[in-house]
Amino acid sequence: MHRTKVRVVEDALDANNTIASANRSDFDRSNVTVVNLMSAPGAGKTTLLERALEGLADEDPPVRVGVLEGDVQGSFDADRLSVLHIPVVQLNTDNGFGGECHLDANMVRSALPAVPLDDMDVLIVENVGNLVCPAEFRIGEDARIMVCSVTEGEDKPLKYPLMFRACELVVINKVDLLEHLDFDVDRLEANILQVNHHAKVMRVSAKTGEGIDAFRAWLQALPARAGATA
Amino acid sequence: MHRTKVRVVEDALDANNTIASANRSDFDRSNVTVVNLMSAPGAGKTTLLERALEGLADEDPPVRVGVLEGDVQGSFDADRLSVLHIPVVQLNTDNGFGGECHLDANMVRSALPAVPLDDMDVLIVENVGNLVCPAEFRIGEDARIMVCSVTEGEDKPLKYPLMFRACELVVINKVDLLEHLDFDVDRLEANILQVNHHAKVMRVSAKTGEGIDAFRAWLQALPARAGATA
Repeated sequence: MHRTKVRVVEDALDANNTIASANRSDFDRSNVTVVNLMSAPGAGKTTLLERALEGLADEDPPVRVGVLEGDVQGSFDADRLSVLHIPVVQLNTDNGFGGECHLDANMVRSALPAVPLDDMDVLIVENVGNLVCPAEFRIGEDARIMVCSVTEGEDKPLKYPLMFRACELVVINKVDLLEHLDFDVDRLEANILQVNHHAKVMRVSAKTGEGIDAFRAWLQALPARAGATA
Repeated sequence: MHRTKVRVVEDALDANNTIASANRSDFDRSNVTVVNLMSAPGAGKTTLLERALEGLADEDPPVRVGVLEGDVQGSFDADRLSVLHIPVVQLNTDNGFGGECHLDANMVRSALPAVPLDDMDVLIVENVGNLVCPAEFRIGEDARIMVCSVTEGEDKPLKYPLMFRACELVVINKVDLLEHLDFDVDRLEANILQVNHHAKVMRVSAKTGEGIDAFRAWLQALPARAGATA
C-alpha cells in the first residue's frame, strides 16, 4: 500500500529561522555584517556603543556602522546614540509584538525598510535586555556578542548557559568598579569558558575607556572575518 | 431568530489566572502570605534575602519564612539560602517548562507539593531574573517586590514600566556603590514614582546591611497587612 509521507508542521522557531534566512539574504545583498548584541538590563550595552562606535568610519579600515535599537518601549538608547551621527533606528516590541522580552527575526524584518543597509558595513542590533529568550531567536546575524557586568555575579554563565554558549564574544564590562566589589573576575571568566570554551572574552570599562580599543579592533575586523566564513 | 451567545475562548493568560487562584486557595488554607520577588539578573535578590531573612523567626512578631527559588537551571541561589535553616525549594524552568524566562502560576503549582506551607508564615518566590515577562504572570501572590540595582541605570523604570507598575515595593540595592558611580539615585526614584506613584521605595545595601532593617520590618508587617486586605 502506498503511504503519503508525513509532513511535520513547522514550529514557531522554524518559522523564525525561515525569516532569519530572508533577513540574511537582504544583509548579504547590501554586504552588511550584522551583530546581535545582548545582555541583562543595565549591563552597559548602549554605553559600550557610545564609547566604541565614535569615528569608526574614519579609521583604517573604515567601518560605517548603523544601529537597530530593540526595546520594549521608548527610545532612550536610540536618542543617546543619535549624537554619534550614524544611522539609528528604534524597534519597539510593544508596537504590535505584544511587548516581547526579545527580538526575533520577524520583528527585525519589520524594521528593515527603515534601515539604510546600503550606507553601512556593520549593523549592530541591540537586543532587549534579557539573559534568556534573546539567545533562542536568530535574526540573521553573523555574530553574537553579550555584555556581562561585574556587578552581576560570577555565577551568571552557569545560571544562563544558553546565552553564554550562543555568543562568540563576551565583553565583561564595568571593570573600573572591580576595586569596590567582592567580585572574582577570573572566576567569572573561568565560568564563561566552562560553558563555552570557544568564547573570546574581553574586559572593558565603557566608562573609563579601558579595553575599548580591543573591542573597536574586533568590530573593525568583523566584515573581513564574516566575509571569509561566508 | 435566536442567536447563540458567542463564547470567547480563554487565552493563555486567563488560564494562568485560573491556576493562580488555585494557588491562592492553597496559600489561604495554610495562612501563608506570598511575595513574588523580581529583578533583572544580578540585581541582588538572593543577597538581599541572605541578609534579611536570618533570624526572622525569633523576632517580635516572629515570622517563619520559606523560599521557592526560580531559575532556568541550577540551584546556586537555593544552595546559598539553605544555610539559613529555612525551607528552600528549587524550581527550574528547564525541567519540563521549556527553559522559560519567568515563573507562571502552573510552574509554581507544580512545586507546591514540595513546599511545607504549614511550616511558614511568608513564602518568598524568587522569580527568574528578567524585567519583562515575570510581571505578566500572577502566581497567586499577595505582594510583588522588585529589586533594582544602582548599577543598572536611572532609565530602567521608563524602559520597563510594566514591571515597576506591577510592584508595591521597589528596593533600590547596592547603594554602597553610589560613591563610585555617576548615578543619580533621586532621578531613579523619581522615574519609579512617575510610572507607579503608589510604589514604596527603599534604598538598601544588601552587602553592608544599610537599610535592611526597614526591609525586614516590611516583611514582618506583611502577614498582618495581607490579612487586613484579604
